[in-house]
Amino acid sequence: MLTGLNIAVIGGDARQLEVIRKLAELDAKIWMAGFDQLDHGFAGAAKAKMNEIDFTAIHAIILPVPGSAMNGTIDTVFSNEEISLDRKWLDRTPEDTVIYSGISNAYLDGILKEAKRKHVQLLERDDVAIYNSIPTVEGTIMMVIQNTDFTIHGSSVSVLGLGRVGMSVARAFAGLGAKVKVGARKSSDLARIEEMGLTPFRLLDLANTAADTDICINTIPHLVLTAEVLAEFPSHAIVIDLASKPGGTDFKFAEKRGIKAMLAPGLPGIVAPKTAGQILANVLTQLLSEQLKERKGSAQ
Amino acid sequence: MLTGLNIAVIGGDARQLEVIRKLAELDAKIWMAGFDQLDHGFAGAAKAKMNEIDFTAIHAIILPVPGSAMNGTIDTVFSNEEISLDRKWLDRTPEDTVIYSGISNAYLDGILKEAKRKHVQLLERDDVAIYNSIPTVEGTIMMVIQNTDFTIHGSSVSVLGLGRVGMSVARAFAGLGAKVKVGARKSSDLARIEEMGLTPFRLLDLANTAADTDICINTIPHLVLTAEVLAEFPSHAIVIDLASKPGGTDFKFAEKRGIKAMLAPGLPGIVAPKTAGQILANVLTQLLSEQLKERKGSAQ
Amino acid sequence: MLTGLNIAVIGGDARQLEVIRKLAELDAKIWMAGFDQLDHGFAGAAKAKMNEIDFTAIHAIILPVPGSAMNGTIDTVFSNEEISLDRKWLDRTPEDTVIYSGISNAYLDGILKEAKRKHVQLLERDDVAIYNSIPTVEGTIMMVIQNTDFTIHGSSVSVLGLGRVGMSVARAFAGLGAKVKVGARKSSDLARIEEMGLTPFRLLDLANTAADTDICINTIPHLVLTAEVLAEFPSHAIVIDLASKPGGTDFKFAEKRGIKAMLAPGLPGIVAPKTAGQILANVLTQLLSEQLKERKGSAQ
Amino acid sequence: MLTGLNIAVIGGDARQLEVIRKLAELDAKIWMAGFDQLDHGFAGAAKAKMNEIDFTAIHAIILPVPGSAMNGTIDTVFSNEEISLDRKWLDRTPEDTVIYSGISNAYLDGILKEAKRKHVQLLERDDVAIYNSIPTVEGTIMMVIQNTDFTIHGSSVSVLGLGRVGMSVARAFAGLGAKVKVGARKSSDLARIEEMGLTPFRLLDLANTAADTDICINTIPHLVLTAEVLAEFPSHAIVIDLASKPGGTDFKFAEKRGIKAMLAPGLPGIVAPKTAGQILANVLTQLLSEQLKERKGSAQ
Ligand SMILES: NC(=O)c1ccc[n+]([C@@H]2O[C@H](COP(=O)([O-])OP(=O)(O)OC[C@H]3O[C@@H](n4cnc5c(N)ncnc54)[C@H](OP(=O)(O)O)[C@@H]3O)[C@@H](O)[C@H]2O)c1
Ligand SMILES: NC(=O)c1ccc[n+]([C@@H]2O[C@H](COP(=O)([O-])OP(=O)(O)OC[C@H]3O[C@@H](n4cnc5c(N)ncnc54)[C@H](OP(=O)(O)O)[C@@H]3O)[C@@H](O)[C@H]2O)c1
Ligand SMILES: NC(=O)c1ccc[n+]([C@@H]2O[C@H](COP(=O)([O-])OP(=O)(O)OC[C@H]3O[C@@H](n4cnc5c(N)ncnc54)[C@H](OP(=O)(O)O)[C@@H]3O)[C@@H](O)[C@H]2O)c1
Ligand SMILES: NC(=O)c1ccc[n+]([C@@H]2O[C@H](COP(=O)([O-])OP(=O)(O)OC[C@H]3O[C@@H](n4cnc5c(N)ncnc54)[C@H](OP(=O)(O)O)[C@@H]3O)[C@@H](O)[C@H]2O)c1
Repeated sequence: MLTGLNIAVIGGDARQLEVIRKLAELDAKIWMAGFDQLDHGFAGAAKAKMNEIDFTAIHAIILPVPGSAMNGTIDTVFSNEEISLDRKWLDRTPEDTVIYSGISNAYLDGILKEAKRKHVQLLERDDVAIYNSIPTVEGTIMMVIQNTDFTIHGSSVSVLGLGRVGMSVARAFAGLGAKVKVGARKSSDLARIEEMGLTPFRLLDLANTAADTDICINTIPHLVLTAEVLAEFPSHAIVIDLASKPGGTDFKFAEKRGIKAMLAPGLPGIVAPKTAGQILANVLTQLLSEQLKERKGSAQ
Repeated sequence: MLTGLNIAVIGGDARQLEVIRKLAELDAKIWMAGFDQLDHGFAGAAKAKMNEIDFTAIHAIILPVPGSAMNGTIDTVFSNEEISLDRKWLDRTPEDTVIYSGISNAYLDGILKEAKRKHVQLLERDDVAIYNSIPTVEGTIMMVIQNTDFTIHGSSVSVLGLGRVGMSVARAFAGLGAKVKVGARKSSDLARIEEMGLTPFRLLDLANTAADTDICINTIPHLVLTAEVLAEFPSHAIVIDLASKPGGTDFKFAEKRGIKAMLAPGLPGIVAPKTAGQILANVLTQLLSEQLKERKGSAQ
Repeated sequence: MLTGLNIAVIGGDARQLEVIRKLAELDAKIWMAGFDQLDHGFAGAAKAKMNEIDFTAIHAIILPVPGSAMNGTIDTVFSNEEISLDRKWLDRTPEDTVIYSGISNAYLDGILKEAKRKHVQLLERDDVAIYNSIPTVEGTIMMVIQNTDFTIHGSSVSVLGLGRVGMSVARAFAGLGAKVKVGARKSSDLARIEEMGLTPFRLLDLANTAADTDICINTIPHLVLTAEVLAEFPSHAIVIDLASKPGGTDFKFAEKRGIKAMLAPGLPGIVAPKTAGQILANVLTQLLSEQLKERKGSAQ
Repeated sequence: MLTGLNIAVIGGDARQLEVIRKLAELDAKIWMAGFDQLDHGFAGAAKAKMNEIDFTAIHAIILPVPGSAMNGTIDTVFSNEEISLDRKWLDRTPEDTVIYSGISNAYLDGILKEAKRKHVQLLERDDVAIYNSIPTVEGTIMMVIQNTDFTIHGSSVSVLGLGRVGMSVARAFAGLGAKVKVGARKSSDLARIEEMGLTPFRLLDLANTAADTDICINTIPHLVLTAEVLAEFPSHAIVIDLASKPGGTDFKFAEKRGIKAMLAPGLPGIVAPKTAGQILANVLTQLLSEQLKERKGSAQ
């Protein structure tokens, strides 16, 4: 239970609803800013304007996944009101208040550093990245099916990277009957790829393996799908680039060459906002429980 | 090789292009009616109007998958011209000419019976039905992802029927990490479901298992998802009904109850026309080779 | 519940213990002949000599899986006593008594025909054959590991037949990371093999595919691994022949050629007698329930 | 190619034969000490006694997987001769000679430190550990099948640890149809377990999950299967402890409690010496190529 915790949820999108639902169930006291047009409510969670929230009593602030825009504005799907996160709110909070968001940016880093408040970026956590890889994979599958006239089953799929997302992508496409090869640079990754029953190749050999590729899924946040590599792809090949902006693909060249290449950011929130929200809710529950325990510990 | 065979392809849709490509490669001589607006051509395949084709020399007529409309009209995606299949064309063909289509209807059955020509319905073949189950499965997956806000992974999926489509559906959803249960009536199907590592249940117990269902995929062409069963589903459940029209779902009740239920016919041609065409092309190649062998045999 | 049924279990081996346990739990009244040296007992089941059993009140006789020897002798693992199944016992039973065994033979067929008693061969049932394929597969895996100096993972495995056992074998070896190809003669089997993500080949082409085989598992009860085929195998290849005696392998030639080939009958009873017994117990429960229902029906 | 490299292989067991075969194929010049009773030879590899080898020209020494005994003795399967690795041999080698073994011990560490020669422990490499997990898994499967009377399919399997071996074990048992749960302490491991479609649990909760365990495979080299935990296992449960000696099981208590628990060291060399040898051969090839490249580089 989270009884005794006061939390401000500023937002946000559908994922935060799952967070609110779960934290409210666990008896946290919640103020929701930026949700005024939301139809249904949650017992224990009150809609509020920013200036109605007593930040001096707030133990945790939960921002939307992207944090804020570079000018501090917070994207609110359930409100027409503009919310801006500025230092004045932070300064009012107790010193040990923790601010949670998915990722960060220079603005957020800046004011949080100035305000000396602890900041947790949930998407940087290994566990969250792995759980999130699941909806990411399903979004990728959907995009591939929508954008090809052949089946994944029986296709040659090339996955780049065996990180947290890459392993999940590779497994899922193999589970659908694709012939999956995975490119990596670490010898231990090559070993794991083989153990998984897939075909490993060295990223250095990417250009050599490209000719036999129907579908390429990139998870490496570096330019790996260069013009040299793309030139070897068959013209019917499709590239789904999952890496964070600007991706790892020379999109200009791909277009010139007539290869469908798509940057596909933020899939979890798009294809499975409920699951994506539950992932955050579960981790937040755990982190807030620990925060609560520490508070109680230090209070004694 | 299919050298020596004269084939009329009357059409049609994108799937037939794969058929034409393959048969032309194998040196059959092909007349294509209803493709006048098709940009590219195939060596060995000539565009023609129906009355330009010398049907007295035709060994095989390949119709689109649906055959014809009930008035004999043939759906042509690549032409504005109206084509109607009537007896006069059939009567001109040699007696051993074979007519191929995907499925049939009363009109087609009628004129083919009258004309005493052999008719092969490709989609009725076990092998074609199994190959086709692959794009059907991928279409189903796409629809589920598009129509839910949670992931397939971790969901409770209920598949109805372990026939040619059901087995493929069950395997694919399990491969994506869903908890799959499959309902069947034959004890041998229940055994196979268990061997596959899935959870079997008797169709008679469908109503009892419904409460724990996030996604239900029906493959049984009989009313199995009755009001009684649907009433037990949770409200967030989604039904994809793959069975041939009118499906196996009480759609009216589903709507009243607020459960998303969708009839999803013809998925292979929609999500993977190229693969679907290749499936037909492969089987046709085999059947036409046998036809050619028989001709040569009887000619001696 | 099986309350009211009187059952004679004549035996037998470890598998029958599971049967006795389950039927006793369901309140059937059981006489066990041939179990005198068994340590533990089961509530509701009494050890008895054949002539102590009142066969006039027996509704079902459960024989060991092999039935009897050709002279009527019954194999008893838990007794030194010799038991012989002869007509006199059968004649004493009520006319609607049912005799259950795994398989049959000429002797058993003979006396049961003469006595006009219904005979159910459990192993002939599709469901039992499929459930039994599971321990069969595990026995096969054990034998392969024991008899090779290389791993199954990464090996080329050739499975012959996609019947009840073949499908299970193919799936399990693929699950262990082998490159599995499956040979079949039906086009629908070839389609299913491909859908399963495995490599299909026509049995007619067996000799051509043999060179690339490390492990061959045969499930076809006909001579398919002929000298011609075996001659193409590499010398390190191993053959596990699961087909019923005499198997489908030219064992003489295999030996001459230096290829390890093993006939492996009766694996379920050897590697997993408990599971094998439970499979029989489950099916018997169902059949005896139906028998009981019918009795009650006809009694009214 | 390894042309120009002089290698002493001192040994050893069947795994080293694969190493010799591969290196000889790549044109390395090889002296084999301790293989005098080996029947067949390898082109480019000469049997030799230790004092026949010109160690001043040797670039690499390949020891058996265990290195040496604590007194320096080297285990030789293919020889009756006693071989002892002492400093005098090492001192004669060029300074940049590299010594390769699977693992090490105090003796080996000692003389190599004194002699200032580079030592590579192959089994410590992540890639080798992962490749080796494959034969380890198959050995585990064999032991489980041999030591149970029920099938792996359908059993509750508990895997402890999601390290290099644990992940492979978990995947393989799931592939055989077991209900696999995996215990780990890192939240990212718990996330990966779930992504793999398996059931995660915290190692702290091990005692609570023990009751539902038919088969437990331990990969954690710490006492995790304590008396407290073992006391919760059902009596038919079996423990295969893969962790390096002394394993992670309270074997005394297990015996008292009547639970079959087995320490199973060195499975790769036992169940698949050829594969295990090839794993070493592949990595050695790569390492020796790099060594050769460096030599050439520094020689210029
Ligand atoms: N599109 C979406 O919806 C979505 C969802 C989730 C994540 N993402 C994005 O997907 C990307 C991957 O995420 P992740 O969680 O899988 O990250 P990760 O675990 O760090 O994996 C990154 C992979 O890229 C490889 N890599 C990094 N730099 C490389 C380089 N210079 N050369 C070769 N390989 C390199 C890494 O290999 P090494 O281990 O050898 O470094 C690793 O295999 C990130 O950009 C993330 O933001 C997108
Ligand atoms: N939507 C699409 O894109 C698409 C694509 C392909 C096929 N389909 C359609 O999907 C359906 C299934 O095709 P299929 O090839 O899988 O057919 P199938 O192999 O004949 O399988 C039909 C399944 O339904 C069961 N079934 C039939 N009648 C039943 C009844 N009265 N009660 C209980 N179970 C019953 C069968 O069980 P038994 O074996 O016990 O009879 C079998 O499991 C067909 O209607 C087909 O036209 C649709
Ligand atoms: N060793 C053991 O412990 C053990 C355990 C269980 C079963 N078995 C034995 O394993 C064998 C297979 O059992 P099952 O239950 O899988 O039987 P099944 O379902 O009847 O399968 C038999 C397979 O053999 C094929 N086949 C039969 N005759 C053929 C022929 N002349 N040419 C080509 N293919 C042929 C069948 O193909 P079609 O469908 O085309 O006919 C089918 O794929 C039986 O002999 C059974 O007694 C052994
Ligand atoms: N029997 C055989 O034939 C055979 C073959 C190969 C390997 N092995 C042995 O198997 C064992 C595992 O090898 P590996 O390559 O998988 O090693 P690994 O990758 O290091 O994995 C070890 C696992 O144990 C966990 N662990 C370690 N200390 C722990 C502790 N105090 N509490 C909880 N968890 C702990 C680790 O979790 P964290 O990541 O949280 O630390 C990790 O999951 C080793 O002892 C190795 O020698 C045996």
